[in-house]
Amino acid sequence: MAKHPQQVAELGEGELLSRIFPRLGGPRMLVGPGDDAAVVGAPDGRIAVSIDTLVQDQDFRLEWPGGYRTTGFDVGWKCAAQNLSDINAMGAEATSLVVSLTLPGQTPVSWVEGLADGLSAALRALGAVDCAVAGGDLGRGGQVVVTAAVTGDLRGRTPVLRSGARPGDVLAVCGALGEAAAGLALLESSLDYAELDGRQRALAAVQSRPCPPLAAGPAAAKAGAHAMMDISDGLVRDAGRLCAASGVCVDLDPDVLQQESATLADIAAKLDVDPLQWVLGGGEDHGLLAAFAPERVLPRGFRRVGTVLPRLEEQGMVTIGGELPSAAGWDHFAG
Amino acid sequence: MAKHPQQVAELGEGELLSRIFPRLGGPRMLVGPGDDAAVVGAPDGRIAVSIDTLVQDQDFRLEWPGGYRTTGFDVGWKCAAQNLSDINAMGAEATSLVVSLTLPGQTPVSWVEGLADGLSAALRALGAVDCAVAGGDLGRGGQVVVTAAVTGDLRGRTPVLRSGARPGDVLAVCGALGEAAAGLALLESSLDYAELDGRQRALAAVQSRPCPPLAAGPAAAKAGAHAMMDISDGLVRDAGRLCAASGVCVDLDPDVLQQESATLADIAAKLDVDPLQWVLGGGEDHGLLAAFAPERVLPRGFRRVGTVLPRLEEQGMVTIGGELPSAAGWDHFAG
Repeated sequence: MAKHPQQVAELGEGELLSRIFPRLGGPRMLVGPGDDAAVVGAPDGRIAVSIDTLVQDQDFRLEWPGGYRTTGFDVGWKCAAQNLSDINAMGAEATSLVVSLTLPGQTPVSWVEGLADGLSAALRALGAVDCAVAGGDLGRGGQVVVTAAVTGDLRGRTPVLRSGARPGDVLAVCGALGEAAAGLALLESSLDYAELDGRQRALAAVQSRPCPPLAAGPAAAKAGAHAMMDISDGLVRDAGRLCAASGVCVDLDPDVLQQESATLADIAAKLDVDPLQWVLGGGEDHGLLAAFAPERVLPRGFRRVGTVLPRLEEQGMVTIGGELPSAAGWDHFAG
Repeated sequence: MAKHPQQVAELGEGELLSRIFPRLGGPRMLVGPGDDAAVVGAPDGRIAVSIDTLVQDQDFRLEWPGGYRTTGFDVGWKCAAQNLSDINAMGAEATSLVVSLTLPGQTPVSWVEGLADGLSAALRALGAVDCAVAGGDLGRGGQVVVTAAVTGDLRGRTPVLRSGARPGDVLAVCGALGEAAAGLALLESSLDYAELDGRQRALAAVQSRPCPPLAAGPAAAKAGAHAMMDISDGLVRDAGRLCAASGVCVDLDPDVLQQESATLADIAAKLDVDPLQWVLGGGEDHGLLAAFAPERVLPRGFRRVGTVLPRLEEQGMVTIGGELPSAAGWDHFAG
């Protein structure tokens, strides 16, 4: 008789937790998982704190059209990565994650174990060496919902906000632009995942397991970045948010954008789309967008993508070579 | 033509946030909502941190059998209360909440505004004067899922863990026992909510909008409590967790439990249940369970409920007058 994989509904909450805890490595917290709250060091005397959620069928599919099945490892990794990215964008260093899992009863236990492994692996691989999963919550629901909150330490630095960009600043990015969107397009396409080549699979992996450049946030803070944010909803939309917060406009350099999109041209041609739309509107790469004084040497990994200008009008805060762009990024509700 | 109430799917994410932010009062954070992360003071140099989730149809129903409709205000209040309770149980004081909302597109905007009001009202009413909503996340999903993470400051005190109870200690509780369970039973019954009397509605409100005793956690820490936890899953189950963490057994006093249940006897008789089961197994009151040295005067609000004994056997860590209890509390997966 075929034995179905063990499901979370077959385990008690305590037993499921006992499958998860041993997989959560990392530095010791002052008080780790298992009490009412964890206790985490905050040597700076201030913490950065943020929260981010992944919802099945909104932020990922359990099975994509081309046949790729999202693993628990993918979801755990992405959950950690997008939270770490928010701390990175303040110029801070992550110190703890607390994670809440809402799971349908038929979720395989092995999928949840994979999720715990993915959380730990992302912390290690992305270089969040002072961060571990400090605690969590488990509950049932109709779809997988994974929420993490992250804390970070500023190490005595001034947090880099969205609101500090000044006319004349260089606008720079760090990390990939559009790769996660290209990966999403591949996963959403009818192309058979099993037949994708190595480069195509690597792009799909950027969507499933993004790699925010965690050294770059603190480096930008040390280099005196005037403003910074994580690019999670697309360059144009996020640049618009930076403009709104700072009271400025930005003009993106069309030649630079063209170069950025050129590396995705072959994949885009295969899918019959304009790769520039991925570069302008694609979210989830979790790179950084920052404004630096023009005389500054950009920190390692940052490249110039445009110029900060005085605020002229609300409409058209973000232009490309002086023209209005066509892609607007991603909105959870209006999308 | 009847106009339907405005739904979240009709608003962009930015517009929905603009409805929420003005409702979130409280003390100013160093960096409040709207940037990649908030920045919150952590004067102690350590933070307590926890996360807790409410899921529609698991932790609350949008409409109960007797006709009561759970308001956004209820869910916001309960979300804040259960998170604050975890910080209280460490002897700490809450400093920030970050809140993630997963909402079906047809959720009325007014329901979400009510949720924001409920978060703020709970912080104020429960006395979490140093805490405010510091940030959040919004996304769509098939059911309402509300997750908050909470940070707290220890004010130089040693965190009170579950693991410090010692044989000979007095086991004490603070806050109601079984009232939230009685309220749940009323909401789940076929009794018409509109015909409930004032006391019955008050019990239903304990379920919908619990009031953890936030002054009592820090007071117990100052009074040298050996161990403490929040009673969220029922006295017997949570006492068992305290025993497991501390390597002890506890014996609950049957006379005290009888007195506790006597106040619920009238409601229990109406619903044809044993009120002792609410006292022993009912969760969500979010009172405190703590162990104190026998010579200590119990801090205000705490009352003796049993005695801590040496560990004799794993089975039967929690007894009542030396006998095994019958109610086991609540388990999210085995339930």
